[in-house]
Amino acid sequence: MNLTKHNNASQLSLILKRRSVRRFDRRAVSGDIIKTIVKAGQRAPTSCGTQFYSFILVNDTRERREILNLVTENRVLQSAPIWIFVCSDVARPLKMFKSLRMDCYLGEVTGLIHSVIDASLAAENMVIAAESLGLNSVFTIYHWKAIQEISRLLSLPRNVLPLLLLCIGYSAEKSTVRPRWNTNVVMHKNRYRMPAKGRLLWNYRRSNKTLVNMGYFSQGVESLAENWQRKFASKEMMLREKKLRRELRKIGFLPNRL
Amino acid sequence: MNLTKHNNASQLSLILKRRSVRRFDRRAVSGDIIKTIVKAGQRAPTSCGTQFYSFILVNDTRERREILNLVTENRVLQSAPIWIFVCSDVARPLKMFKSLRMDCYLGEVTGLIHSVIDASLAAENMVIAAESLGLNSVFTIYHWKAIQEISRLLSLPRNVLPLLLLCIGYSAEKSTVRPRWNTNVVMHKNRYRMPAKGRLLWNYRRSNKTLVNMGYFSQGVESLAENWQRKFASKEMMLREKKLRRELRKIGFLPNRL
Repeated sequence: MNLTKHNNASQLSLILKRRSVRRFDRRAVSGDIIKTIVKAGQRAPTSCGTQFYSFILVNDTRERREILNLVTENRVLQSAPIWIFVCSDVARPLKMFKSLRMDCYLGEVTGLIHSVIDASLAAENMVIAAESLGLNSVFTIYHWKAIQEISRLLSLPRNVLPLLLLCIGYSAEKSTVRPRWNTNVVMHKNRYRMPAKGRLLWNYRRSNKTLVNMGYFSQGVESLAENWQRKFASKEMMLREKKLRRELRKIGFLPNRL
Repeated sequence: MNLTKHNNASQLSLILKRRSVRRFDRRAVSGDIIKTIVKAGQRAPTSCGTQFYSFILVNDTRERREILNLVTENRVLQSAPIWIFVCSDVARPLKMFKSLRMDCYLGEVTGLIHSVIDASLAAENMVIAAESLGLNSVFTIYHWKAIQEISRLLSLPRNVLPLLLLCIGYSAEKSTVRPRWNTNVVMHKNRYRMPAKGRLLWNYRRSNKTLVNMGYFSQGVESLAENWQRKFASKEMMLREKKLRRELRKIGFLPNRL
């Protein structure tokens, strides 16, 4: 399709060219810009207008330092002028329901899924809004290592989960669009068809080659597979799953028994 | 902030003016446009490049009819020319890991959250891409009533959840932007502060008044509270929670025991 024929081609190209940025320069970002980005987040579709999300801007130097101490990886966070915790929030909607004397209920798992969807839809709007304002961004989840401690620092009540930490600023790196699988790997017609092993590996090799050529890997990692092996290593992930379940149970996003 | 001063003001205004559309006209949408929208979805950030999502375009008339029979509410679906099930997909990434002979593990809950985030980020990109191409859209979850039956129709393997049904087409309704809470209700600085009951009710009344004035409600519902009361009624939601847990357990997105 010839996209340039369309009036809003530049809007689409903003999405198609967007890539995450992990090193920011020292330029500050104004409060007005931050508010506009959050407002853009609120424009995302939300389950029955409930807005199952909250956004916590962290700009207090001491609080930042405490958070940096809690996460082991922090080069990205250190360079980002703006930190916004995008939270799944069922607590405020529940208070709203109660204030209206409604007889409503949100099960733990229903609340978790609804709020993760709402928060993520809003988060992506914020990312696109940032791009349209000439800024760059990256989502991080380093804080998943210390959800409980960070929730305490942010004074999060029960039923609020710090889902993504959105870092925003002006890019200080040269980076290009990252590869994705061919669209026919992720898109199906009428029925799901699992791609054959050969097709997956072909897609993997093509993506990996592009990433190697753009100098994407560092710290001794030399391929996407190595990167995944490090991030999703069985032993570590089992512990992480156990911890995540425990923490979600504690804040009301999983029941005590299934 | 004077947004018109910025080069990409129109891109931002696309997000700020976007609203869900629930009635579409009969104009067809080309395959090229659909593919462009899915490609825009793939440009969303994704956890370590894993792309925990799949998209299923349903255009087979018989399959559509079977799905309509499974959901009770269907006026929206009936009028939409394009149906795309946005799925949380851990199955394909796991097959990719296995094909690469990696020793990786994704816990049930970790996989659920990662894939709901990835799928939702992609879904919102698709919504904005559709707007930029002059199309309108709405997310529906009517199919949650029959996840198991619909998963069978779509031939979904274990570890794939049909999360959102994205309906796309050209609007056949006059609709305006829906109200949201004041940004200071959802945005916090450094610490979460639960808004007082009075502030929540003030925001509720303002939003409700706007919705009433725009003729948003129908089918005997006269306020946002009534709408919520119907959608989140305790008795029904308890059953829904139970069913959702059972279904997520069955497809590997919740463990058998916590």
